[in-house]
Amino acid sequence: MSAASGREAVVVGAGLIGTSIGLALTRAGWTVHLRDRLLSHARVAESLGAGTSEPAVSRDVELVVVAVPPRGLGDAIGHALSNYPRATVTDVGSVKAGVLDALWDTQVGLERYVGSHPMAGSQHSGPLAARADLFADRTWVITPHRRSAPESVEVVHDLVGACGAREIVMDVGEHDAAVATVSHLPQLMSTLTAGALTGVPASHLALAGPGLRDVTRIAASDPQLWEQILNANQAAVLERLRAVQTELDAVIAALAAGGSGSAGEALRASLERGVEGTRKIPGKHGRAPATYGQVVVEIPDTPGALAKLFADVGAAGVNVEDIAIEHDQVRQVGYLALSVTPDQVGALDRTMRDGGWVVQP
Amino acid sequence: MSAASGREAVVVGAGLIGTSIGLALTRAGWTVHLRDRLLSHARVAESLGAGTSEPAVSRDVELVVVAVPPRGLGDAIGHALSNYPRATVTDVGSVKAGVLDALWDTQVGLERYVGSHPMAGSQHSGPLAARADLFADRTWVITPHRRSAPESVEVVHDLVGACGAREIVMDVGEHDAAVATVSHLPQLMSTLTAGALTGVPASHLALAGPGLRDVTRIAASDPQLWEQILNANQAAVLERLRAVQTELDAVIAALAAGGSGSAGEALRASLERGVEGTRKIPGKHGRAPATYGQVVVEIPDTPGALAKLFADVGAAGVNVEDIAIEHDQVRQVGYLALSVTPDQVGALDRTMRDGGWVVQP
Repeated sequence: MSAASGREAVVVGAGLIGTSIGLALTRAGWTVHLRDRLLSHARVAESLGAGTSEPAVSRDVELVVVAVPPRGLGDAIGHALSNYPRATVTDVGSVKAGVLDALWDTQVGLERYVGSHPMAGSQHSGPLAARADLFADRTWVITPHRRSAPESVEVVHDLVGACGAREIVMDVGEHDAAVATVSHLPQLMSTLTAGALTGVPASHLALAGPGLRDVTRIAASDPQLWEQILNANQAAVLERLRAVQTELDAVIAALAAGGSGSAGEALRASLERGVEGTRKIPGKHGRAPATYGQVVVEIPDTPGALAKLFADVGAAGVNVEDIAIEHDQVRQVGYLALSVTPDQVGALDRTMRDGGWVVQP
Repeated sequence: MSAASGREAVVVGAGLIGTSIGLALTRAGWTVHLRDRLLSHARVAESLGAGTSEPAVSRDVELVVVAVPPRGLGDAIGHALSNYPRATVTDVGSVKAGVLDALWDTQVGLERYVGSHPMAGSQHSGPLAARADLFADRTWVITPHRRSAPESVEVVHDLVGACGAREIVMDVGEHDAAVATVSHLPQLMSTLTAGALTGVPASHLALAGPGLRDVTRIAASDPQLWEQILNANQAAVLERLRAVQTELDAVIAALAAGGSGSAGEALRASLERGVEGTRKIPGKHGRAPATYGQVVVEIPDTPGALAKLFADVGAAGVNVEDIAIEHDQVRQVGYLALSVTPDQVGALDRTMRDGGWVVQP
């Protein structure tokens, strides 16, 4: 039964995350047993090469990965610790403290539990969207608790390595505070902004631009999943939301005062704090955000246009740092914005014009 | 002095918008006189071909375009109506009602004033960022009032046409309500989300993903300009903000209640309303948003890679609807997500694999 590494794991929950983990572990030589409430999910995952849907042959498996929705995490972790008495058990939930608290007083074998959180996903869900490299170079947070056995932390470390992810070790509470700030708060702010569009006349929405699209993009995510995540991180999310509530109240007071006096200063202070906040977000490749120059080229919306365009870009010998397509709302054309380091703008601009492209001045 | 069209205009304010209008009008054959509090701005605009910085030769110019910051709009429009007694006067301010109200009772010649709002801009500002086609195929809202003369509306219509923009005629109040929803509210929500990042440990921000970047992107905009815009649209922005405040209060109450009972339902309802809102935003080319399939290909972060990649994409004969580059945080590689219609996914996927590219399964 055992493959090259001789190591054996059970993955509980054959959705996008669980199946991707199964694929990565299998590729790394582990024997993987797949479990799901829906046998069809486990069968699909099996057909993709993520492991076997047959029951585990022994209770001696080394690792159990619990990849079920937030609401079911506590029970599934408890069952795994009881059913597999030698296994290290981890989960992939996006919130860590509540689950641990629920198990703390009564669960046997808690030294074998080490929580974790791979920071990866997709707009898709289910096993068919799974990829062996879903976690490649993504951050994967490991959250040991004070009773976690060092050898169990080591097994989860091996899991992260097999998935090609970048490991960060954090305290449970630190982790939950961090995701409340960088993930759960933005989600709700996007939701509230998008929610304000319901009941608005279509003629008003005709004035929508790229800014609105950016702010509301993640509001399209699964409400059922997010309801569970937000409730699971209740305390940390409430703290962030109440801070925003206080600031929103101050902005409303400032606007109501017509921008004059100390209330007026509160609005400016909020806007400036926002600018400061954007500068704190790490940029590409973990470096501080660089400032690139742009060359914007008109492209026909037809097959082959991009090929010819990038052949000409290639001929310029520049390194394109980022690209974005912008479509206009009326003509069937798009604009391609090519970001390059400022010293390369001139050369790229000339090459494109020489190639007959319409470059925006 | 006069060019081919024989028409003459004054542009007040030689920043990004004013200079771009000067370029477009000049290209359309108008004689353009440029004004700016900073003579250097007018001189730069002149050097770019946006018009002349010499004073207007006659008081008989046909059109004055006021392109100054929000705070100075009322005075500048009033001066233009008095100084150029035959001219149609328009402005490019992003808020319309307050300026009109301020002029309503005492301003002479108000029948020659027709407000307008080109929905275009750039992350850059100043005359050097100007382009003759900044407004090409962008929405340009015209907001006539009940005393506006039809011939003045016609002159502004000609301005929009000369700039290549797509005209929408709206009532002043409708316009201000629309931009409060699709522009000013998202701006403040982005600001509040980004503001919550100040004072947060860098270790927490290491967990930031693309969602946070999307939501906070526009928060980096100029605070001074936005303070003026928001105060200028006080009533409409307050209405939207108070609706969000009510909803935020309900979300906080729902979370505090632990997601149970009717309070718990309020959280789910908010999340679902957010999803509904995202579906109301018009998509590319003004069509309802289409659902595309994606092929994700690994690209080395080196010159020439994109050229070869798009040559192979071109060989597949598919029409790429959208492209996005995602950089990982550690390795110097990126992933290129190619969006195509679902029926073209298979062909593109095969062609890329045949070409030796690493395609995500």
